[in-house]
Amino acid sequence: MAETDPLLTSLQPLVSQLNADYARAIDDDRLEDWPDFFVEQCLYSITSIDNHRQGYPGGLMWADSKGMLQDRVAALRDANIYERQTYRHLIGLPALLGEAEGAVRAETPFLVVRIMRDGRMDLFATGRYLDVLVEDAGALRLRERIVVCDSSRVDTLLALPL
Amino acid sequence: MAETDPLLTSLQPLVSQLNADYARAIDDDRLEDWPDFFVEQCLYSITSIDNHRQGYPGGLMWADSKGMLQDRVAALRDANIYERQTYRHLIGLPALLGEAEGAVRAETPFLVVRIMRDGRMDLFATGRYLDVLVEDAGALRLRERIVVCDSSRVDTLLALPL
Amino acid sequence: MAETDPLLTSLQPLVSQLNADYARAIDDDRLEDWPDFFVEQCLYSITSIDNHRQGYPGGLMWADSKGMLQDRVAALRDANIYERQTYRHLIGLPALLGEAEGAVRAETPFLVVRIMRDGRMDLFATGRYLDVLVEDAGALRLRERIVVCDSSRVDTLLALPL
Repeated sequence: MAETDPLLTSLQPLVSQLNADYARAIDDDRLEDWPDFFVEQCLYSITSIDNHRQGYPGGLMWADSKGMLQDRVAALRDANIYERQTYRHLIGLPALLGEAEGAVRAETPFLVVRIMRDGRMDLFATGRYLDVLVEDAGALRLRERIVVCDSSRVDTLLALPL
Repeated sequence: MAETDPLLTSLQPLVSQLNADYARAIDDDRLEDWPDFFVEQCLYSITSIDNHRQGYPGGLMWADSKGMLQDRVAALRDANIYERQTYRHLIGLPALLGEAEGAVRAETPFLVVRIMRDGRMDLFATGRYLDVLVEDAGALRLRERIVVCDSSRVDTLLALPL
Repeated sequence: MAETDPLLTSLQPLVSQLNADYARAIDDDRLEDWPDFFVEQCLYSITSIDNHRQGYPGGLMWADSKGMLQDRVAALRDANIYERQTYRHLIGLPALLGEAEGAVRAETPFLVVRIMRDGRMDLFATGRYLDVLVEDAGALRLRERIVVCDSSRVDTLLALPL
């Protein structure tokens, strides 16, 4: 019953759009577009709810600059791992939690299905995006995205970004 | 191709927001906040499509006041069942079906993934929320939420609200 | 970071609504309403990402008129296949990709859960709707919907429309 700030409410369609575009880039195998959803000095990590609660940094994937995200994509292309699987993201409505110094905090539920090359599908991950968003060069971009997975049993073959 | 009533259309973002907040309270284990999405004299039940079609009341969970919902939460806390599992809701767009005497009827599809303490995830339930919504103390609240599950094979360990 | 055309942005709620109504018709077993989401001269097909990339027409289901869609529904009713299963669609936010000569192209992610008569549920399909939408008799309708499934392993018992 919270979230009634009109400024935040007006931002919600923009955050939903950002999430839809973000998911589409990954799911369409346009991984090179993925770092552009972040500002230069950013934080991206994938962690589990247990690690997140205990304050451990995400060990599954971690980057603190757009350059590191680009390196990650280059490594995925070299390793050809991306050939073996694709994702399909379904993303819920963002909750806009507050605004301070031009940055907006949002929290958004997601579900990712993984499709293997041979056609097998499985429910790969569910969780929340914990985001800090800023306006950057006329567009909304991520300054921080902590991907908190609900399950602590995350596939060690985790390869594509979530 | 229905639902073109402007009043109803203007309510849709509010109903979507209510559903997002409702899901977030449950999925974040803030169960104590869950009864506040309902008015004092309310109806909440979980049933299956077969029982619903035949007019049977929902046998899986049933409450007709906010106090009963609060009791339910207290019982869950005592039983510590909630420790063993969490849910992740993904909720679709509500269809607003009509308005009468200040109450709005809505129907919304949902999917719930269950995450067990050991990390196992499964597709727990899909179905529809059949809702009657009213304005109450400045907020939109549920006067009725019938949770109609698509599958008649519902886990007998059903514990958390859907 | 694309999709900033104001005309297209203003259409997004309408396309979301169309998708929600479309899904509800199928999931509620009102299959007879399903062809009405299309214009008379339309294209509907279900294909896989591999076939789609290679330019093969969809072999799983294919129709190029509203009449063919109606025939399909009649056949399903005769065969009584629909009794044995229902679907639950969860549909993401549409990306509006362009507009030309009164027609709008949109791409929308989806997930479908299948519920068998005995209560079993499975993750049946994920993919994208590739749509061409036009205004027709005062409503937004599909001139084209190519259902591109992420998995090439599609159930040969595929019966209901996706």
